[in-house]
Amino acid sequence: MHPSALHEKDGIEQPEIISSASVSQIQQFRRKQPSAQQLIDGILKGNKIALSRAITLVESTSPAHLEKANEVIKACLPHANQSVRVGITGVPGVGKSTFIEAFGKYLTSLGKKVAVLAVDPSSSLSHGSILGDKTRMEELVKDENAYIRPSASGESLGGVARKTRETIILCEACGFDTILIETVGVGQSETAVHSMVDFFLLLNLAGAGDELQGIKRGIMEMADAIVINKADGDNIKRARLAKTEYNRALHLFPMKNSGWSPKVTTCSALTNEGIADVWDTITDYFQLTQDNDYFSKKRREQNQYWLLETINEQLKRNFYNHPDIQILLDENKKAVQNNEISPFAAAQLLLEKYFK
Amino acid sequence: MHPSALHEKDGIEQPEIISSASVSQIQQFRRKQPSAQQLIDGILKGNKIALSRAITLVESTSPAHLEKANEVIKACLPHANQSVRVGITGVPGVGKSTFIEAFGKYLTSLGKKVAVLAVDPSSSLSHGSILGDKTRMEELVKDENAYIRPSASGESLGGVARKTRETIILCEACGFDTILIETVGVGQSETAVHSMVDFFLLLNLAGAGDELQGIKRGIMEMADAIVINKADGDNIKRARLAKTEYNRALHLFPMKNSGWSPKVTTCSALTNEGIADVWDTITDYFQLTQDNDYFSKKRREQNQYWLLETINEQLKRNFYNHPDIQILLDENKKAVQNNEISPFAAAQLLLEKYFK
Repeated sequence: MHPSALHEKDGIEQPEIISSASVSQIQQFRRKQPSAQQLIDGILKGNKIALSRAITLVESTSPAHLEKANEVIKACLPHANQSVRVGITGVPGVGKSTFIEAFGKYLTSLGKKVAVLAVDPSSSLSHGSILGDKTRMEELVKDENAYIRPSASGESLGGVARKTRETIILCEACGFDTILIETVGVGQSETAVHSMVDFFLLLNLAGAGDELQGIKRGIMEMADAIVINKADGDNIKRARLAKTEYNRALHLFPMKNSGWSPKVTTCSALTNEGIADVWDTITDYFQLTQDNDYFSKKRREQNQYWLLETINEQLKRNFYNHPDIQILLDENKKAVQNNEISPFAAAQLLLEKYFK
Repeated sequence: MHPSALHEKDGIEQPEIISSASVSQIQQFRRKQPSAQQLIDGILKGNKIALSRAITLVESTSPAHLEKANEVIKACLPHANQSVRVGITGVPGVGKSTFIEAFGKYLTSLGKKVAVLAVDPSSSLSHGSILGDKTRMEELVKDENAYIRPSASGESLGGVARKTRETIILCEACGFDTILIETVGVGQSETAVHSMVDFFLLLNLAGAGDELQGIKRGIMEMADAIVINKADGDNIKRARLAKTEYNRALHLFPMKNSGWSPKVTTCSALTNEGIADVWDTITDYFQLTQDNDYFSKKRREQNQYWLLETINEQLKRNFYNHPDIQILLDENKKAVQNNEISPFAAAQLLLEKYFK
């Protein structure tokens, strides 16, 4: 999809889809440069257009925008954190979009305000492979209690993850109490999403006996629930079999620190069968982890994790983007491959150059 | 165990245990400061005392020693790499030492020269929890074709891993063709060892139905073979059952890049039953990965991994050890916990201070 097509479909800044925004609100925030204070006021009043403009600042690479974004985030922080953050992953084809559409509609029917975000570092290349094609969430996108934002783009997962994590804060300050964060079942993006959510949900399909084969390294271990999607029609029996298989597989993993035993359920985003069960499972989890104080402990740890992670990433970026270092690194990589120098001696050479 | 006791038992610099070293060799290398060239010559001639002295340099924290160590390693590099590197892990109590004794003796009986190293970052605290108590490898330590060296000590896993990886180079240049690297079944040390060996072996015990419970995150996935130890006496039946269980569990994981399907075998370090099978499995693995060129590809990747890993670790150490940064970091950690500042804004503050 072409980026401009994505933007047109985005629907966020398109008044015809945002039924909750009055004409005056739209005019106010469609101005080229709303001030930080205007954005803050708008967000705290629940204005989705102000929210979108602020997220655009967070996603910007301009230092001036970054400074403004930080000001907005700082003011939003005391109003954030009152939410449930759910990560949703699954390989392509598992039906993530239809599941989120059905699940999101169910949540808004309970009176919840639902924000749907995505972490997809590949989106800058593919122009939004997840949450890009909004037609797959046709109904949810029109729901005034839902807000859908495609993945930030960026060169690195770290950059995309930072933007998403700050976006969570803005959404929460804007009154969204349930944050769903979708990710692709590829690479390290699950780990990044896992470290910014309270509950991690793995969406799977029933398959032949080998349905566990395709599950990526460690992802099953992160899951607080496995939901077998497309449990409808001819598929129901296979879905139940898969449920037994997954339950057995989950027993192979050690007890979680949360004290929670991961659950396996089946659902159909087509018939809505089992969609309520998913929310009940999440509610049970929150009850348990709020009672045993794991919930707030995990959030504190996640904050600290992101502080250190951001520092470490920037330290590396500063080193590896240094022009002299890049030349020297290329030379030393070759020397290491040819066994002319040990990896450690080569590292030492490079570090001496850098710190001098 | 007291450090001096460890040193006395070490046996490496104790002439009475090194039957292969002539008195003149011992005298030559017991001198306080053999030159780098003397060490190189000694190592290339297969002298274990020169090897031990060079490893001591590698393990030193003195800059002068480090420079000398680098000189020795550089000269050894063209003579290294002609070996088989096997990582061996398993939780305490699984019988790693008795297994390595039996396995090492079997290998020397085949005419192999076996070096046994260890990666145990806790050893600086516990004064050598693995490979420290040499009485458990009584026979192997006296074998002239074996060389045993306890884990380097160090504050960080990264430091211990670096030392071990350079020690591998020295051992190979000294003529050791089979390098066994033991590690404890704890934390990140498996990952470090996995990234320096060709073949990774997980030692396990048969147990009740829940024997898979205790297996650490990701370790089973790294294993090229699972060996169920203590398959003797009353235990044989349970060991066979465990073998079936582990075989089933291994099917849950995706295909390895090596094209190798991990094997499960049983053995007894007491009766020597199954010890030869372990080596046969490893031999099969080497045949396959040399035919499909995965073997050399993996070694090249490991070299590059260690180059980058060493750089990244040093960049972090330089930042976090900076006195001003330490104070500022403590302040910002608290502010982040209290939601006064976002983790990203705090990171930015710290980085600005550091790079200024």
